[in-house]
Amino acid sequence: MRYAYLGPQGTFTEAALRSVPDAAGAEHLPYATVPAALDALRRREVDAAVVALENSVEGSVPTTLDELATGVPLHIVGEVHLPVSFALLVRPGTTLADVKTVASHPHAQPQCRRWLAEHVPHAEWRAATSNAEAAQHVADGHYDAALAGSFAAARYGLTALAENIHDIADAVTRFVVLRRPGHPPAPTGADRTTVVAFLGEDHPGALLEILQEFAVRGINMTLIQSRPTGAGLGSYLFWMDFEGHIRDARVGETLMGLRRICADVRYLGSYARADAVRPEVRRGTHDADFTEAAAWLAALRTGS
Amino acid sequence: MRYAYLGPQGTFTEAALRSVPDAAGAEHLPYATVPAALDALRRREVDAAVVALENSVEGSVPTTLDELATGVPLHIVGEVHLPVSFALLVRPGTTLADVKTVASHPHAQPQCRRWLAEHVPHAEWRAATSNAEAAQHVADGHYDAALAGSFAAARYGLTALAENIHDIADAVTRFVVLRRPGHPPAPTGADRTTVVAFLGEDHPGALLEILQEFAVRGINMTLIQSRPTGAGLGSYLFWMDFEGHIRDARVGETLMGLRRICADVRYLGSYARADAVRPEVRRGTHDADFTEAAAWLAALRTGS
Amino acid sequence: MRYAYLGPQGTFTEAALRSVPDAAGAEHLPYATVPAALDALRRREVDAAVVALENSVEGSVPTTLDELATGVPLHIVGEVHLPVSFALLVRPGTTLADVKTVASHPHAQPQCRRWLAEHVPHAEWRAATSNAEAAQHVADGHYDAALAGSFAAARYGLTALAENIHDIADAVTRFVVLRRPGHPPAPTGADRTTVVAFLGEDHPGALLEILQEFAVRGINMTLIQSRPTGAGLGSYLFWMDFEGHIRDARVGETLMGLRRICADVRYLGSYARADAVRPEVRRGTHDADFTEAAAWLAALRTGS
Amino acid sequence: MRYAYLGPQGTFTEAALRSVPDAAGAEHLPYATVPAALDALRRREVDAAVVALENSVEGSVPTTLDELATGVPLHIVGEVHLPVSFALLVRPGTTLADVKTVASHPHAQPQCRRWLAEHVPHAEWRAATSNAEAAQHVADGHYDAALAGSFAAARYGLTALAENIHDIADAVTRFVVLRRPGHPPAPTGADRTTVVAFLGEDHPGALLEILQEFAVRGINMTLIQSRPTGAGLGSYLFWMDFEGHIRDARVGETLMGLRRICADVRYLGSYARADAVRPEVRRGTHDADFTEAAAWLAALRTGS
Repeated sequence: MRYAYLGPQGTFTEAALRSVPDAAGAEHLPYATVPAALDALRRREVDAAVVALENSVEGSVPTTLDELATGVPLHIVGEVHLPVSFALLVRPGTTLADVKTVASHPHAQPQCRRWLAEHVPHAEWRAATSNAEAAQHVADGHYDAALAGSFAAARYGLTALAENIHDIADAVTRFVVLRRPGHPPAPTGADRTTVVAFLGEDHPGALLEILQEFAVRGINMTLIQSRPTGAGLGSYLFWMDFEGHIRDARVGETLMGLRRICADVRYLGSYARADAVRPEVRRGTHDADFTEAAAWLAALRTGS
Repeated sequence: MRYAYLGPQGTFTEAALRSVPDAAGAEHLPYATVPAALDALRRREVDAAVVALENSVEGSVPTTLDELATGVPLHIVGEVHLPVSFALLVRPGTTLADVKTVASHPHAQPQCRRWLAEHVPHAEWRAATSNAEAAQHVADGHYDAALAGSFAAARYGLTALAENIHDIADAVTRFVVLRRPGHPPAPTGADRTTVVAFLGEDHPGALLEILQEFAVRGINMTLIQSRPTGAGLGSYLFWMDFEGHIRDARVGETLMGLRRICADVRYLGSYARADAVRPEVRRGTHDADFTEAAAWLAALRTGS
Repeated sequence: MRYAYLGPQGTFTEAALRSVPDAAGAEHLPYATVPAALDALRRREVDAAVVALENSVEGSVPTTLDELATGVPLHIVGEVHLPVSFALLVRPGTTLADVKTVASHPHAQPQCRRWLAEHVPHAEWRAATSNAEAAQHVADGHYDAALAGSFAAARYGLTALAENIHDIADAVTRFVVLRRPGHPPAPTGADRTTVVAFLGEDHPGALLEILQEFAVRGINMTLIQSRPTGAGLGSYLFWMDFEGHIRDARVGETLMGLRRICADVRYLGSYARADAVRPEVRRGTHDADFTEAAAWLAALRTGS
Repeated sequence: MRYAYLGPQGTFTEAALRSVPDAAGAEHLPYATVPAALDALRRREVDAAVVALENSVEGSVPTTLDELATGVPLHIVGEVHLPVSFALLVRPGTTLADVKTVASHPHAQPQCRRWLAEHVPHAEWRAATSNAEAAQHVADGHYDAALAGSFAAARYGLTALAENIHDIADAVTRFVVLRRPGHPPAPTGADRTTVVAFLGEDHPGALLEILQEFAVRGINMTLIQSRPTGAGLGSYLFWMDFEGHIRDARVGETLMGLRRICADVRYLGSYARADAVRPEVRRGTHDADFTEAAAWLAALRTGS
């Protein structure tokens, strides 16, 4: 087994990948960008890929959403929640007073804004493709400090001048494990399903219609995120994560409803929730209720 | 073939039965009450029954609704719309000045109220079990006049002192043809389906939930009528007529939805509409849309 | 004060009127029909009227609904719930074996059907304008027995051959107290409001739209009843009883919503519930919430 | 008048600001980041600010959304739609073969991905805080080329090696003009209103409830965007743009509805639409309908 991840070594994504049980004995291959990691999976260079999907402070990762929503199809087969913890990495010997430039991925800077304003108010921020790349730049002497996970220090010969410098405690990043489309993982009873709905005609009540397909089958959504389709301002697709597994009858009927009313629906996978929360299934929406109702209907239709 | 109807001879129901094509060569048997006619069908004394369901002026017929909603099950297999036209039937020689009492079924009197107030303002109304029975009472000399169809005059040796005396032009009564439960009639493309929904827990949003089951599948309702269940004020069942046939996919899924969320659902039949109106099927709710979505889901579930 | 009621003396309506506290010292005037009682109120012959609105077994009273929905406007100012209890009234000396005919208002017969079938299976039913009139007919010797309240026996010189002969225990009839339109009674905190909504264009989702006006303001409906408008099959008005008082902000906004989307809305009154049930007011729909939101909006609109 | 914008000179934001009629004779002051420009407005260093809100390809700008949703309040008073057109800016004499590094704001790179892959497949991308800053870095010799508007070339002594190199034709960026909170601009009949809704309790149907507040008043949404509140995965706020002006009755009632059901609502302004599209106002939701309904209710409440 080979896993692609957003590298270089020392990224949060690599830390996430290390927590995936199935990836324990596998080979971990860093790629420079999210699209590069996903393309490696599509080209069969690797068997799976791990990328960041959303962060509890910075929101969803547009590149990941767009790649999965509109690129060559891949399926989510698992997810990982990783607590966010930033450190200020510097070359040994550097003091706070020495820090004139701080580099990081653009997502990292806003998460440490208050700490930076207080402790290194005159430092300038520099963008990097990843926090690990920022650490590399610090090691190379281009910049004075990098925002990164403390686990990256050793790898780049740096030291953590300060730890836990992110402004919001309990920040979490959600990563997803991807594979090429295939048979979904077996239901665990605490599953999540992801789909992308494309709205066809630009009719204003479309989102309400979509939510009602979920509501009548008692399904709770856990994330809804609009993204432009590229066809002009006002044209959106909706990324939706919701409780349940595609094999659940209520999920299946909802998916068919979306399929019928949307211009297009892309199924992105059913997988075990990282938080193992089991849904509260509303009366009348258990699999047994669907089975009973189908038998009832069949008998009526045949007059038996 | 034997058909039961609300008699005696000369009722509007008999006139409705005469307009049923399938009943042309059949035997027509009058019964004294709607429950009696339906019980004859249940006991297999007859093969079908015709009873009034609703009137465009007086509303639904409670006895019919309650019998079909809660009695031993029967199915509607057809419907007839009959224009309402009342005449004032009297014994030959009677003049308006002679009319001191006017008899009729309680449904008939309000439909002729204005005419009666204007032409026989001092006459008293008397209740009869049917308009034809009222005519019989006039023939027997008990009352002076009866409100009934003019076709009843000859049968009882009466004469129509005035015709078309109902207050609202274009009044129509809707009759249904009933049989014992069995295979529904084949879809015609202009069908109606009738169900009765029993609300379980007395939760206030229940009716809204029911209507949403119809709305998400684009199904239009043509009649909704609440009736007490007998379990106390505030406990109701809902009689619902709507467009489509039980074999239509959108109708089938809606029925299953009702079955899952209601305490009980009684299917009362799918049958050709008397007015032959074809529904406007909303995008995404044709049978082909359901078939395509089911195939899509099946492929996703198996990973094929 | 003078109160009209559906007479003659001895009807359930008279019994209901006797339980109205405000009518204690008032004059009680019987009228032959519901429309006659209401017209007396409209003509100012009386100051108030009491009529039956619905029964937990037989359903709503069409004449009352239609008169209040479409006649010269009157307002409901109170309601009474009266347990239903039928007796079989006969002339002294009559035995069950003597009973060949049983008279009653058409609403009474179905409520005693099982008892009659068991104890006087061969007796024929005869329609009367009221149960009290039926008792009068028995006293006059026209019929053998009447279905009526036992309190009617003394008044007509009859005796109760059997009591509590109705099939469903705990049956209740709901009566309403009417006055000419005016200032609504003060809110009690356990109020009900009644309106009639007329649907204009025959568009299928109209009822759903109406229910959503209630749902977004968290208002529970206690009765919904469709009645034909007389304009043809498929054209209905909806009688709706719901929790709350017209002075409640959430009720006021809902009424305005109905007024805006319906062809017409008739307000029929806000009044204390007979059962004194207080509504569970949903978060965000108390008067204080509306007041706060209005102040917020006003400040935003003026930029203050 | 002084306007802040995301600088340095040569950014798309500066081009957008140049198209604002009211800013014609005003002073234009560049700021290094969106938060810096907004803080300048808050601190009264400037009278207005222009920042990018969303792009038809790259989606909404998280920093702008988050600053306006949760920072010290500002109001949107206008908007500008600017067609996106990227050029590849180089130092004079540079050829495509010389381009080893391409710098830009992170939003720009994905919009030119296909062109870059085809024409400079081996060039590496470098992040910059703005496209104009990238141009500055090219002028300074740090990088070989910058993705920026061709209007930036002159300012940095660069030349456009290629123009219109963005992958999707007709891409548009929407900018908003901000001021400190105050009296909203007068309605034009083609207005947009922006609010941010914070969901309180984490109840799953909350978004559906919010959309229904809009639906019952016939208001169309033009953008809905979820953002994390920072309180953990699954806790979101919703940025919503919709048709109409806060002074419209239907908008006012909707805003009050949101205020009542949401944990918090932030009003961000009503302003003329850049595309001048006038809404189709649904029957029953014109100001006159609200006025008439309010008068009707007032008369009923006082019994007049």
